[in-house]
Amino acid sequence: MVTLSQLAEKLNLSYQGDGDIQLRKVATLASAGANDISFLSNRSYLKELKHSQAAAVILHPDLSEQFLGNKLISDEPYVTFAKVANYFAEQNSPQQTGIHPQAYIDPSAQIAEDVSIGAFSVIGPDVVIGRASRIASRVTIEANAVIGHDCDIRSGVVIEQACHLGQRVTLHAGVVIGADGFGLARSANKWIKIPQTGRVIIGDDCSIGANTTIDRGAIEDTVLEDDVHLDNQIQIGHNVHIGAHTVIAGCAAVAGSAKIGRNCLIGGGAGVVGHITVCDGVTIQAMALVTKDIKHPGIYGSVAPLQDNKNWRKTAVRIKQLDELTRRVQKLERNKDD
Amino acid sequence: MVTLSQLAEKLNLSYQGDGDIQLRKVATLASAGANDISFLSNRSYLKELKHSQAAAVILHPDLSEQFLGNKLISDEPYVTFAKVANYFAEQNSPQQTGIHPQAYIDPSAQIAEDVSIGAFSVIGPDVVIGRASRIASRVTIEANAVIGHDCDIRSGVVIEQACHLGQRVTLHAGVVIGADGFGLARSANKWIKIPQTGRVIIGDDCSIGANTTIDRGAIEDTVLEDDVHLDNQIQIGHNVHIGAHTVIAGCAAVAGSAKIGRNCLIGGGAGVVGHITVCDGVTIQAMALVTKDIKHPGIYGSVAPLQDNKNWRKTAVRIKQLDELTRRVQKLERNKDD
Amino acid sequence: MVTLSQLAEKLNLSYQGDGDIQLRKVATLASAGANDISFLSNRSYLKELKHSQAAAVILHPDLSEQFLGNKLISDEPYVTFAKVANYFAEQNSPQQTGIHPQAYIDPSAQIAEDVSIGAFSVIGPDVVIGRASRIASRVTIEANAVIGHDCDIRSGVVIEQACHLGQRVTLHAGVVIGADGFGLARSANKWIKIPQTGRVIIGDDCSIGANTTIDRGAIEDTVLEDDVHLDNQIQIGHNVHIGAHTVIAGCAAVAGSAKIGRNCLIGGGAGVVGHITVCDGVTIQAMALVTKDIKHPGIYGSVAPLQDNKNWRKTAVRIKQLDELTRRVQKLERNKDD
Repeated sequence: MVTLSQLAEKLNLSYQGDGDIQLRKVATLASAGANDISFLSNRSYLKELKHSQAAAVILHPDLSEQFLGNKLISDEPYVTFAKVANYFAEQNSPQQTGIHPQAYIDPSAQIAEDVSIGAFSVIGPDVVIGRASRIASRVTIEANAVIGHDCDIRSGVVIEQACHLGQRVTLHAGVVIGADGFGLARSANKWIKIPQTGRVIIGDDCSIGANTTIDRGAIEDTVLEDDVHLDNQIQIGHNVHIGAHTVIAGCAAVAGSAKIGRNCLIGGGAGVVGHITVCDGVTIQAMALVTKDIKHPGIYGSVAPLQDNKNWRKTAVRIKQLDELTRRVQKLERNKDD
Repeated sequence: MVTLSQLAEKLNLSYQGDGDIQLRKVATLASAGANDISFLSNRSYLKELKHSQAAAVILHPDLSEQFLGNKLISDEPYVTFAKVANYFAEQNSPQQTGIHPQAYIDPSAQIAEDVSIGAFSVIGPDVVIGRASRIASRVTIEANAVIGHDCDIRSGVVIEQACHLGQRVTLHAGVVIGADGFGLARSANKWIKIPQTGRVIIGDDCSIGANTTIDRGAIEDTVLEDDVHLDNQIQIGHNVHIGAHTVIAGCAAVAGSAKIGRNCLIGGGAGVVGHITVCDGVTIQAMALVTKDIKHPGIYGSVAPLQDNKNWRKTAVRIKQLDELTRRVQKLERNKDD
Repeated sequence: MVTLSQLAEKLNLSYQGDGDIQLRKVATLASAGANDISFLSNRSYLKELKHSQAAAVILHPDLSEQFLGNKLISDEPYVTFAKVANYFAEQNSPQQTGIHPQAYIDPSAQIAEDVSIGAFSVIGPDVVIGRASRIASRVTIEANAVIGHDCDIRSGVVIEQACHLGQRVTLHAGVVIGADGFGLARSANKWIKIPQTGRVIIGDDCSIGANTTIDRGAIEDTVLEDDVHLDNQIQIGHNVHIGAHTVIAGCAAVAGSAKIGRNCLIGGGAGVVGHITVCDGVTIQAMALVTKDIKHPGIYGSVAPLQDNKNWRKTAVRIKQLDELTRRVQKLERNKDD
């Protein structure tokens, strides 16, 4: 429990109403009850604000008159909500539980203090794990990998040999870091594998979603700079470089040797083909395919709008005829000029 | 082994031919031999029916004259085939094998009778597992999760804290239930994680395909109603709600807070963007992208037809010129009117 | 270490320059230093060739005059590079480490000589593993599966019952072989599962990327012929058949009962719908969707080109109007004829 006035002081914000009211957790406007703090960051929820039973609401100063109850005033209500939610989450965060007797840790591994390691995890030779990192159950960390401090590695993760994680990196369940990149040379009658001898290097404060895969470099390294966030089921090919603060939504894929700039937003299911460069500050819409370098910041898309099947079938036929249609229009234009 | 007449009686159907013939397993029309029962549910296989060596065939009454051998008559041949195949599968189903000595089970977990748990599985504090559920090898079930009775949890699955599974739920290998949703607030110079404190709630009779991921809710829960079936490699974002009897094919993705109705069919690789609502009874074609609410049942698509590269290159150029082409047609129309 | 002349002799190639120079590893043209061998297979790197510090470079005879240093001459520089890289990789390959005391191996399993099995792996009843195969940590191989010799099975893999792998097969981390295919029959009020009783059969010299899933057949088998290579996060449905030497890039999906020919290249994120046939020698571009049989070798695509949002929004509107636009052009043409 924390009071509204304590929370305001902690976050260096002002509040209005009863500063002594006790707050226990965050909740949505619609579901909040006594001891819950909620927030409004999107005007489309204004109607819910009016009826909210929240003990307090985080509001932009321009909207503070829209709610009669207790409020915490913030120019960035969503960022403040994130901070408040993190405050409560830390109160309830699990205790470090030490090293489970059924983990296997190679004697040459260097495990810093306050590290926890769950049951049936495997820590290979010469692995280094920094202070206060939490390794859940059933994690494999292979030889010579380096994990920074305060990392959070969830169940089922595999980190292959010699990969590096910075500080405060989260890998969600099922992530695979450092599998071989997809490198094949075609000889006369079969494919020959190119050994993948680079590493994966992940900067500080990154998070990687469940079952996402990041391949090791072919010769040099695959690199994520600091504060990069990947959602679930993403595929990052070998030698890819992703700039700081870039965020990628679920099921997107970046093919080998592509270079993504800083502060990019890549939509769900989008694709970036190999060996191209996307500059800083680019937004790619969901399921779009990037096939050429992008040299100017901005928003890019390529996916046709959804139609009901009757109309879509007509459209699809017409798309195939589009070159012919264009030529017919050219002919009409020429005739007109005659 | 079962005879044709026994099978007919069990399913309350009629048969024609030798009721004493022994049946041992299901097979395709083309591969079936003595003691195999096959089925015809798709008229395009009529040719194979004529030459089938099956001991018996499940047939619609309208087609029963197309086959001279023994037959089981059903208005729904595919449903009957499913029931027959399940009958044989149950005969051969693996024995419950009890709790493997190399599983780790927290002393506070409540494990009902007839539960089996495989080697190197981890059952966390206060987990509840219902009667006759089978937990394979190398499964992690975290604190406070609740698993119904008769569930089937395959190898490598991770179920994170406090998630709920109903009765008779199947999770295939590599599924991750309850990883953190992708919630980030952008502050001045970096992303701040929004703690994800909701759960995943899965109804009765659901099945989830290999390596599919379902994220926990941000504040409230991610919900799958009863009889929802997801194929492999699917991503379900936080706070999504999926109605009963909906089926989603492989590699599809549903972004955060989207609401999918009942009895929907979502094609392989299709995408649904966040915060939209799809009504009951909607079919989305493979690889289509849903970007707006759908308010009427029906079939929807958006993917251009495949063309060979020579033609597709022309089409692609023309698509980019489409707005200009439309304006040229407008000009021709105006000229004509002059 | 190996000298340039030794390497040339081993590969039956000629060299130019100092045959006694010592080579220790492969490197890119830009990063290579003393004792590194590099290669040029793509003319776009010619500029880097001129400034390369590599001890030797693998070059096509037509380009040998472009580099003044030591060179290994090859008609197929990339294939030669692959062979050289494999030579160095084998020098550094990990020792077989035997069977970890914390693996669980059913007494009925048949493990050939020189097999290694990592910690917390589970080998089920009657499994057969061939000579010199390496099973990493935390792998599950279920009853009656057969693994050939010299296979490489990485951490977290699941191979379900009765599946077969040929010789020299690599399964990267998180792969699931033999999960149930997605087979459901719709009865009046709910879905009935079709038991999946086929297997997955994988030929010799195949490789399967991280977190890729290959479902077992419904009745018959899902088959990959020899020398098939799948990248990460791919989904292969039940009863699919993939011909020899076919290569599929990341995040692609092949739906149930599709048949892909030999020597095909399927691009990243591409989709193939169920029950269709793609002939030998077909290339499918990234994110294209194959909805009909392909009967002629060639390159096929269907994805619209990326545009900036302002232009794309116009294009998207026009695509929906395309049938109407075509009719307007038809009307203009008729009017002209009047």
